Amino acid sequence: MTSRMNKLHDYLDHNRLDAMLITSPKHVYYLTGFATNPHERFLGLLLPKGEEPLLLVPALDYEAAQAAAASTVPNIHTHSDTDDAYEILSKLMPRGIRNLGVEKDDLSVRRYEAVHGAVGAATYADIGAPLREMRAVKTPDEVARMKHAVRIVEDVLRAGVARVKPGVTEIELVAELEYQMKKLGAQGPSFDTMVLSGAKSAMPHGTPNNDPVRDGELLLFDLGVYADGYASDITRTFAVGDISVEAKKIYAAVLEGNLRAIEAIRPGVTFGSLDRAARQAIEAAGYGPYFNHRLGHGLGMDIHEYPSVHGRNEDLVQAGMTFTVEPGIYVPSVGGVRIEDDVFVTPDGVEVLTSYPKELTVIG
Amino acid sequence: MTSRMNKLHDYLDHNRLDAMLITSPKHVYYLTGFATNPHERFLGLLLPKGEEPLLLVPALDYEAAQAAAASTVPNIHTHSDTDDAYEILSKLMPRGIRNLGVEKDDLSVRRYEAVHGAVGAATYADIGAPLREMRAVKTPDEVARMKHAVRIVEDVLRAGVARVKPGVTEIELVAELEYQMKKLGAQGPSFDTMVLSGAKSAMPHGTPNNDPVRDGELLLFDLGVYADGYASDITRTFAVGDISVEAKKIYAAVLEGNLRAIEAIRPGVTFGSLDRAARQAIEAAGYGPYFNHRLGHGLGMDIHEYPSVHGRNEDLVQAGMTFTVEPGIYVPSVGGVRIEDDVFVTPDGVEVLTSYPKELTVIG
Repeated sequence: MTSRMNKLHDYLDHNRLDAMLITSPKHVYYLTGFATNPHERFLGLLLPKGEEPLLLVPALDYEAAQAAAASTVPNIHTHSDTDDAYEILSKLMPRGIRNLGVEKDDLSVRRYEAVHGAVGAATYADIGAPLREMRAVKTPDEVARMKHAVRIVEDVLRAGVARVKPGVTEIELVAELEYQMKKLGAQGPSFDTMVLSGAKSAMPHGTPNNDPVRDGELLLFDLGVYADGYASDITRTFAVGDISVEAKKIYAAVLEGNLRAIEAIRPGVTFGSLDRAARQAIEAAGYGPYFNHRLGHGLGMDIHEYPSVHGRNEDLVQAGMTFTVEPGIYVPSVGGVRIEDDVFVTPDGVEVLTSYPKELTVIG
Repeated sequence: MTSRMNKLHDYLDHNRLDAMLITSPKHVYYLTGFATNPHERFLGLLLPKGEEPLLLVPALDYEAAQAAAASTVPNIHTHSDTDDAYEILSKLMPRGIRNLGVEKDDLSVRRYEAVHGAVGAATYADIGAPLREMRAVKTPDEVARMKHAVRIVEDVLRAGVARVKPGVTEIELVAELEYQMKKLGAQGPSFDTMVLSGAKSAMPHGTPNNDPVRDGELLLFDLGVYADGYASDITRTFAVGDISVEAKKIYAAVLEGNLRAIEAIRPGVTFGSLDRAARQAIEAAGYGPYFNHRLGHGLGMDIHEYPSVHGRNEDLVQAGMTFTVEPGIYVPSVGGVRIEDDVFVTPDGVEVLTSYPKELTVIG
């Protein structure tokens, strides 16, 4: 936590800011270890240049904040529901704040006006970029949490797959998966759990319904959980009984794309090159036009975060980053296959966090 | 839709605004009938004083917007991912906008700065209040949608209750309820489904887990669904087998509080008086200190919206409003009871939308 704050202090210095005010609960958690949902109440972490940080929390959160954050932020102040939180903020603020960093994507105009009324800075700079970049490179503790979230979701997937037989409906399988998530201790799904059967597997954003699983069809599972504040995300596609030659060919092409992309991951290459590695394998199999989305997305405290892994992203892969690799082929009226892994970039390559088997498996 | 826009035009006139720019997808839907999740893309409904409204949508949403909104907003414009949406907005904006209304609770500072760059108004007024007040009074169409959402959630509750027997766990029941929601055509739960057994029923914000339902205990269900964009919300508490005399006494006091509050509802009384009606009944039974939350909350497109039904709210109840009535008594280590209905205020009283029986029922 302290090293994260030190990086922000460096950013303050290099960008001539007098202070940063962090107001998104997620980033307060990221920087202090204190997790809360303050609802409409004010929550703020103030990092003034060259001074100790301080945290202003709703009074009913004081003990929890003290327990979680006291070691990194010794100064914890409170406001009650009858206080004006911004007046308290104004008193806590060092004199002479001219340039204040805030999260412009997260802060509402209402809050911004109240902060401006209290602080009266001359300029407000956006601090989204340093937070986004810092979050993209995970610490060992964060990777451990992500591995835990992956372990849970893979156990959930195994339990769901065991329930597949012709006639079971997509939403019955979704219910089983989400039940297993809770049973195995996840905080909950990290996005809407998807089970798509037959031709519907060809709709990347289809919705599970009362359609029954049928023998001879593809069955696609896309699911993830939050555990300890971090997300996992996995897709596997199965054969229910004996599937067509074309479905098998599609599966082989997607698997090839997944493997080629993973093989290409190491620090210093571009995200675009990973997308192209998968795309070339899929084009070689003749399915290029049917891989109609990006290769993947950053994964961490958010299910979709920086970086976006697409063909035109020439940013460089860095050690410590975690993202998804999820090529897919979707042939209308035939069906779709997607194989998604979560990966962690190591100093000399990649560690694949997901370990659920990827070869075509017949179930049901 | 048109009458809603007319009301906003009246607001423009009375408040000397030159235009309103509505950017929250929920309010665009409320005013035009066009529902979309634009993610990070810009979506805006512009209501210029004395002129036709116009809608600016992402290009990929054009056909859907046309189909849903063309009758109320004939001018639908688009921006593609390579356009600067704010530049297009600037060209669409009538000249000489000095005072612009925006949703300050919803608009991020990033968007606000982009809008300001495009429009350059001198002042920005918050238009949260007129939208909030208009939404609080439902139209017959909205009430019909809410009744539909209530019908679904009551069928879901019935199916869940049928699965109760000693030994079944809280999260197994949650899974069954959420499965039934999908099966019966809801968009999904309107909040985290709650099933709390035994002493845990005394925790108003407890979390369902692997605890089994036990004979002789209370079992509390609190659940809701979204259907057609509107929420329902119901709580019922049951006796699993034979419960203690004290638990029965608590149940009777909560039911009395629920009935007295509902009886008091009609246009012109204060929200505070409703809360007090329930509280007096519960105090008379000797459980005053154990009813430690407000009576209820507004219900509609949001699960919690204006009005807040608490003892110090002296706003007046109006015909057409919909809110929850949910007194509860929570006695640590004994258990908790909450009975929650959704109500609709009629010109001369109240219609209770929820019809699930409220007398103490033994299940399992």
